[in-house]
Amino acid sequence: MSIRQPTVEHSTIDMRQVLGLGTPKAIDLWLDVVTDLPDRAHELAALSKAELARLGQLLDNANGVELLESVDHQLAAQALRAMDPMVAASLIDALDTDHAADILRELKEPKREALLMLLPLERAKVLRSLLSWPEDSAAAHMVPETLTVRPDMTVSEAVASVRDHASGLRSDSRTTAYVYVTDADSHLLGVVAFRALVLANRVQRVSDLMTDDLIVVSPLTDKELAAQTLMSHNLMAVPVVDGDNRLLGILAEDEAIDIAEEEATEDAERQGGSAPLEVPYLRASPWLLWRKRVVWLLVLFAAEAYTGTVLRAFSEEMEAVVALAFFIPLLIGTGGNTGTQIATTLVRAMATGQVRFRDMPAVLAKELSTGVLVGITMASAAVVRAWTLGVGPEVTVTVSLSVAAIVLWSSLVAAFLPPVLKKLRADPAIVSGPMIATIVDGTGLMIYFMIAHMTLSQLQGL
Amino acid sequence: MSIRQPTVEHSTIDMRQVLGLGTPKAIDLWLDVVTDLPDRAHELAALSKAELARLGQLLDNANGVELLESVDHQLAAQALRAMDPMVAASLIDALDTDHAADILRELKEPKREALLMLLPLERAKVLRSLLSWPEDSAAAHMVPETLTVRPDMTVSEAVASVRDHASGLRSDSRTTAYVYVTDADSHLLGVVAFRALVLANRVQRVSDLMTDDLIVVSPLTDKELAAQTLMSHNLMAVPVVDGDNRLLGILAEDEAIDIAEEEATEDAERQGGSAPLEVPYLRASPWLLWRKRVVWLLVLFAAEAYTGTVLRAFSEEMEAVVALAFFIPLLIGTGGNTGTQIATTLVRAMATGQVRFRDMPAVLAKELSTGVLVGITMASAAVVRAWTLGVGPEVTVTVSLSVAAIVLWSSLVAAFLPPVLKKLRADPAIVSGPMIATIVDGTGLMIYFMIAHMTLSQLQGL
Repeated sequence: MSIRQPTVEHSTIDMRQVLGLGTPKAIDLWLDVVTDLPDRAHELAALSKAELARLGQLLDNANGVELLESVDHQLAAQALRAMDPMVAASLIDALDTDHAADILRELKEPKREALLMLLPLERAKVLRSLLSWPEDSAAAHMVPETLTVRPDMTVSEAVASVRDHASGLRSDSRTTAYVYVTDADSHLLGVVAFRALVLANRVQRVSDLMTDDLIVVSPLTDKELAAQTLMSHNLMAVPVVDGDNRLLGILAEDEAIDIAEEEATEDAERQGGSAPLEVPYLRASPWLLWRKRVVWLLVLFAAEAYTGTVLRAFSEEMEAVVALAFFIPLLIGTGGNTGTQIATTLVRAMATGQVRFRDMPAVLAKELSTGVLVGITMASAAVVRAWTLGVGPEVTVTVSLSVAAIVLWSSLVAAFLPPVLKKLRADPAIVSGPMIATIVDGTGLMIYFMIAHMTLSQLQGL
Repeated sequence: MSIRQPTVEHSTIDMRQVLGLGTPKAIDLWLDVVTDLPDRAHELAALSKAELARLGQLLDNANGVELLESVDHQLAAQALRAMDPMVAASLIDALDTDHAADILRELKEPKREALLMLLPLERAKVLRSLLSWPEDSAAAHMVPETLTVRPDMTVSEAVASVRDHASGLRSDSRTTAYVYVTDADSHLLGVVAFRALVLANRVQRVSDLMTDDLIVVSPLTDKELAAQTLMSHNLMAVPVVDGDNRLLGILAEDEAIDIAEEEATEDAERQGGSAPLEVPYLRASPWLLWRKRVVWLLVLFAAEAYTGTVLRAFSEEMEAVVALAFFIPLLIGTGGNTGTQIATTLVRAMATGQVRFRDMPAVLAKELSTGVLVGITMASAAVVRAWTLGVGPEVTVTVSLSVAAIVLWSSLVAAFLPPVLKKLRADPAIVSGPMIATIVDGTGLMIYFMIAHMTLSQLQGL
């Protein structure tokens, strides 16, 4: 037997060798040796079209499914595209329905339609129906095949019925953790764990065993909300029902995990002030990275350009007291840092459902109190710093008052924006550190020079 | 039946009313009506010690488990602390072992030990053993109870054996998705899906049915790596085996999800330049927020203070060409933004296992190429901006050359630091946007004034 530990091991066979050996056994061996999924993706991504086509000839349904499921959908689609259409169709047919749909979604027409045409009619119909739901809906990611029993069945009848139907289902135990109880019209009545069914007394009725207190989602529920629902309730699947409470399918736990991971990655990228890559990082070209990043950089540059106008307006002040300029990066940097801390914490708390718009008063109160504490601390640090730069007592007072005011202002902006964006149905994750920093830079400088005007005797005449 | 949709509904009963009604039925009703988990946590967190103690008296094992599992471990522990010890012990006893250990871990001695003393001896022993593993190990989060069968059993013997043992297990279907095949000495030989067992021909041997190609983890495997392993292989559980390949328990999928979610939250907080809160945001006091944030703020302030020294060193230059000061926030802001984009994308790619230290040459090559493209773009934008500020051609050249140089420098720093920290076994997530911005601020200014010296005729004498 082979026990595989998730450690970094030196693979002794690579995909090129496998293709050279040219037997399906070599693929099995490769899958056994290269257990690290990023490694698999790496090697697969490095193959040419011709090599991918050869690979297709070596795949049977078992190792083909394992290979395709261990890489991202995009790469799987790319591999399928290069293969003989009959081989590709047979692999698609062997995949679980939700995974097959995820991969087909990455294929453009007419390639997608060409593959669907090669599938058994019934199978193609099911996949087309999944593909017709909006990509961000729960229904687009569900497994349409479910195991159902009737409430008036005895346990032994139900087990027999499950046994009959399960052999026809392609999905593995993902779809059989729960057996759903429906009436003849597919209306969802309850759920019973497959385990409970098997372990129960054989003459009991299903209706006595089932739970009728169900968490369900609608087909158009946002996929992230549906995934969050499944995960926060520790469920293995969540049923998708239509407006009449008819069972359409289930969202499985592994699909929910994929959805949540993808969303967390997109949020992280947005939070860093970039558009989501939508491609694994190592496969993103410099041109793609440039395109995803430069839009926000230019927007922020344009917004930040305003600081030049502010500084030009106050150039007389800087010429009078050049020491004022020394503190510009320090003041706006501290303001940006404070705001970034708050915005990232808050955006994450909102993404996990911990904080909602209605919590906004509590958030503002909390952040303003914290802002006062942080402001006092940073003002003290500023006194020390100004003293060591030897800029005299007046500038020291100006700088420390300014840092406190800027911290408070930045706290307010960072606590205010994410919930408001959420309310406006925008993604709060676009409130990135860079965005907060940019907002605080220009406005922070205005605060600084206004305070300088009030506190510095040299500036009284200006 | 009650079908619960995850929508925001107006609850018609709150926890205080429930306590006033004073019957266990009221708790059941509350659990039915308040389906939103953050709402439950909110209401529970608002209760006084005396109220929590009263709540304990209304809980039976069923609704008690549902209530405790729907809030975070810390809050669950807080509630248990206020309750009668006998009630608390009975609830702990009713919880799945991994969940019980998670909650007990939040209790300090002697309270934890006092609760353990009240549990059945065998149960306390199992929990103590879980609690003795390091908190960040896979073993600390496993379910020690597993269903095992022998390879030479027939399917019907195996089902009978599972049926016998499953009734003794407290965990629900979480532990029965897979049945593990072991020898008499607990050595792990293979796995068979519970479903496959039930649906198979009754006279087949378990050994013909089982998969011996297993993904396992060691007890001391980092919990995040173990969770990542489970999730990326789409498993419902991953077995934890000791050095002799003896089965110690399994890490269940819902526990893996919790571990991954918690880690993603900590990473997001670190990336925002703050220490992880370790408490749900809404329950964090301003003092706690201050403590978690101020350390990094002061470190960054101290590092940023260096910009003052740089600017003082170049004060003659600024007095000669005051227009140079106008561009300081714009230049260092753009440098910080570029670096933040790269660092957040890279840290996330490393957290999900897509990028490893050995990919560093590829990362550096990719980011430097992208840096050149971004640098050219931003330099063009800088020409436009300098022109509109009317600072003359020489300063315009200085500014646009500087922005390109700073973008490239920032790209290098941001692409270099996360993998290097990973190699040094530090968490790459501490390379926050604020940290990159701070590094680039001081060094970026030096680049700016050096370029100014080379390009500005007024500065030739200085």
